[in-house]
Amino acid sequence: MSKISGSASPQVATAADFLIASRQCEVRSLEYFLLMGRLVQSTGHLIHELQRERGVTSLYLGSDGQRFGGERAGIILQTSEQLEMFYLALNDIQHELISQPVSSPLLGHIARALHGLGQLEDIRLRIEKQAIAVHPAVDWFSDTIHQLITVVCEAADTVVEPSIAGLLVALVQVMTGKEYCGQERAAGSTGFARGRFDRALSRRMLHLVEAQDRCFEVFVTHAPEDSLALWQKLRGRPRETEIERLRQIAVSIGPYKPLDPKLAETWFTLMTERMDDLKQIEDSVESAFHHRCVERYTEARCSLADQSTLLASLEQGVQAGGSILDLIQEQNQRLQQMSDELQSAKEALEERRVQEKAVLLLMEHRNINDDEAHRVLRKLAMDQGKRLSEVARALISIANVLT
Amino acid sequence: MSKISGSASPQVATAADFLIASRQCEVRSLEYFLLMGRLVQSTGHLIHELQRERGVTSLYLGSDGQRFGGERAGIILQTSEQLEMFYLALNDIQHELISQPVSSPLLGHIARALHGLGQLEDIRLRIEKQAIAVHPAVDWFSDTIHQLITVVCEAADTVVEPSIAGLLVALVQVMTGKEYCGQERAAGSTGFARGRFDRALSRRMLHLVEAQDRCFEVFVTHAPEDSLALWQKLRGRPRETEIERLRQIAVSIGPYKPLDPKLAETWFTLMTERMDDLKQIEDSVESAFHHRCVERYTEARCSLADQSTLLASLEQGVQAGGSILDLIQEQNQRLQQMSDELQSAKEALEERRVQEKAVLLLMEHRNINDDEAHRVLRKLAMDQGKRLSEVARALISIANVLT
Repeated sequence: MSKISGSASPQVATAADFLIASRQCEVRSLEYFLLMGRLVQSTGHLIHELQRERGVTSLYLGSDGQRFGGERAGIILQTSEQLEMFYLALNDIQHELISQPVSSPLLGHIARALHGLGQLEDIRLRIEKQAIAVHPAVDWFSDTIHQLITVVCEAADTVVEPSIAGLLVALVQVMTGKEYCGQERAAGSTGFARGRFDRALSRRMLHLVEAQDRCFEVFVTHAPEDSLALWQKLRGRPRETEIERLRQIAVSIGPYKPLDPKLAETWFTLMTERMDDLKQIEDSVESAFHHRCVERYTEARCSLADQSTLLASLEQGVQAGGSILDLIQEQNQRLQQMSDELQSAKEALEERRVQEKAVLLLMEHRNINDDEAHRVLRKLAMDQGKRLSEVARALISIANVLT
Repeated sequence: MSKISGSASPQVATAADFLIASRQCEVRSLEYFLLMGRLVQSTGHLIHELQRERGVTSLYLGSDGQRFGGERAGIILQTSEQLEMFYLALNDIQHELISQPVSSPLLGHIARALHGLGQLEDIRLRIEKQAIAVHPAVDWFSDTIHQLITVVCEAADTVVEPSIAGLLVALVQVMTGKEYCGQERAAGSTGFARGRFDRALSRRMLHLVEAQDRCFEVFVTHAPEDSLALWQKLRGRPRETEIERLRQIAVSIGPYKPLDPKLAETWFTLMTERMDDLKQIEDSVESAFHHRCVERYTEARCSLADQSTLLASLEQGVQAGGSILDLIQEQNQRLQQMSDELQSAKEALEERRVQEKAVLLLMEHRNINDDEAHRVLRKLAMDQGKRLSEVARALISIANVLT
C-alpha cells in the first residue's frame, strides 16, 4: 500500500493508505456490533424472564406462599438459564469493549446491572421464606430490569451507523414499553385483587398507560417493516378491547366501589398474553438488528476489498474510471451524511435521557416518587403546550442555575 | 478480579470487573489523545510553514520571479522539515486510529489532506518556472491548509473528555482565525501593491476580518488562561491600531483612488508579525492541551489503581468507607456529567460544520464563490436577527426538502 511515485521515504503513509484505513475502521466498528448483538439479545431474554419471575413472585407473596410455588420454581430455572447466557455474552465482549474508548459509560452501566443481579439469589431466598413484602420484592425486580434496559440504551449510544442505531432505538422503545406493560400488569393485579383502586393506584395505572403509548409512538417511527406488521396485529386483537375496558374501570372507579376479585385473574392473563406478543415484536426487531449488522458488515468488507483493488490499479496508473481524490471525497461525504442521519436516530435516546434526568431532579427536590414526578412533568408540558423533552430540558437548565 | 462469593462459575465477570473496565477504557482513550497530541502539534507547525510559503510564493510570483527567490528557498526547506515531522506523527498514530471506530471520518480527512500534500513538489516546480499564476498557486496553498485544519477539527470530534475537547475547540478557532489572518494578509498585499482595492477585494477584506473576529470570540470562551493573556497582549500592541487604519483604507476606498504602493510592504510586515503572535497563542493552547492530556492520564491511572485496591478490600469484606454500589454510581454520574459538558464544547465544532455545509450549498446552488456565500449567510442572519448557525441550519434543512 505504501508506494507512491516520488515520495522520499518508502515508510511514508499515502492518501490511499488512509482511505483504506478509514474503511477498515468502519469494518471494525461493525464487527464490534456483531458481538454487541449477542449481548443485546441475551439482555432482552433475561429481562423477559425477570418480568415473568416478578409476576409470579407477586402472586406467590400475595397468596402468602399458598399458591404459585410450583410455577415460580419453573420460572426461576428459566431465569437462571438466561442469566448464564447473559454472563457468557458479557465474557465474550468484555475485552472488545475495553479497547473502545466510547464504551466507558456502557461498561459502567453493565457494572451497575451486574451489581443488581448479584443480589438475585439472596432476594429469592427471602421471597421463598416470605421474609420480604410484595412491594420491595417487586421494586427490586423493576430496578434490575431498568438497569438492564439502560445497558441496551448505552449500547445504542455507541453506534456510529445510522440504520443500526435506528433499529436499536426501536428495540429500546419496545423493551421500555413492554416493561411499562409489565408494571401495569402488576398494578392492575393489585387493584383488581383488592377489589378497588384508590386514587394513587388509578394515577399509577394512567401514568403507565401513557408512558407505554409514548414508547410505541417512537417505536413506530424507527421500527422495521416486519415488526411494524406484528405491532399492527397486536393492536387488532380482540384482547386489546377487553384490556381497554378493564383499564377504564381501573382509572375511573372511586376507592369505595367494590369490584369482582375474579377480574384479577382475567387481567393477569390478558396482560401476560400482551407481553408475550410484545416479546415477539422485540425478537423481530432484535433479529432485524442482527441481520442489518451482518449485511452492513458484508457490504463494508466487500467495499473495502473493491476499493483496495481499485486503488492498487490507480496507483499503477491504470485508468479505472475515477481518481483517488474522487474516492476520498466520496468516502468523506458518505461519512458526513451518515453522521447527520445518526444525529436524528440518537435524538430519541437523548430525549429519554433528558426525561429521566428531569424526573430524578423532581423526585429529589420535591421529595415525590417516580410516578408523581412523571405527572408533574406531563402537566408542565400540557400547560405550556410544549413537548415533554422540551419541558424536561428547560427544567434541568433552570435547576442547574438554582442549585 | 473475578472472585465473588457464591457465583457458580469462577469465569463469571463481576460488577467490580466492569467498573474497573470502565475506568480502563477512560485510561485507554487518554492514551490515544497523548498520541493524537503529536499529530495536532505537527499539523499546526506544518500549517504555519505552509502559510509562510504561501506568502513568499505570492511575492515571488508577483515580482515575476525577480525577487524573494532566496527567502522562498529558505522557507521551502523549513516546510519540508515540518512535512517530515507530520508524516512521522501520522505513521506513529495510524495503527492506533484504525482500532478506534469513531475515527473513520478523521482517517478520511487525513487521506484528503495527504492527497493535497502529495502535489506540493509538483506545485513548487511550476512556481519555480513561473508556469502557474499567483491566484491558483495561492488557492492551492489555502485549500491544503483548510484540509489540515479540518483534520484537527475531526480529531477534536473524537474526544470524550470535556476539558480536552474544550482546548481542542480553542485550538481549532485560533488556527482558523490565524488562517483568515493569512488570507487577509494576501488580499491586502494584492490591493496595496496594485495601489487600489476594487469592490470585490474590499468585500473580501471585510469578510476575512469578520470571519477572524468570530473565531476569536469563540476562542476566548474556551481558551486557557495563559493563551488568553497572550491574546490580550496581542490586542494591546500599537501594531493593531496601525493594522486597523490600513484595513479602513482597504474596505472604504473606491476603485479609482490610487494608493501609495509602499503600503504593501508595511502591510505585509505588520500582518506577518501578527501571524507570528497568533502562532505563539496557538502554541500555548497546544501546550495546555498536551499538559491537560498528561494530567488527565496520570489522574485516571492513579484513580484506576486506587479503585482496584479499594475494590479488592471491599470484596474481601474489609469496610473501607463505601460500597461497590457507591463506587459504581459515582462513576456513572461522573461519566454522565462529562458527557453533558462535552456536548457544550462540541457545539462550537458542530456550528463550524453546519456553516461550512451551508456555504457549500449556497456556492453550488447559486454558483457563487466562498466569500459571496459567506456574505449571503451573514445577510440572512442580520435580516432575520438570528445567529449565523441557526440560519445555516435552516438553510440546510430547506435545501434537503427542495432537492
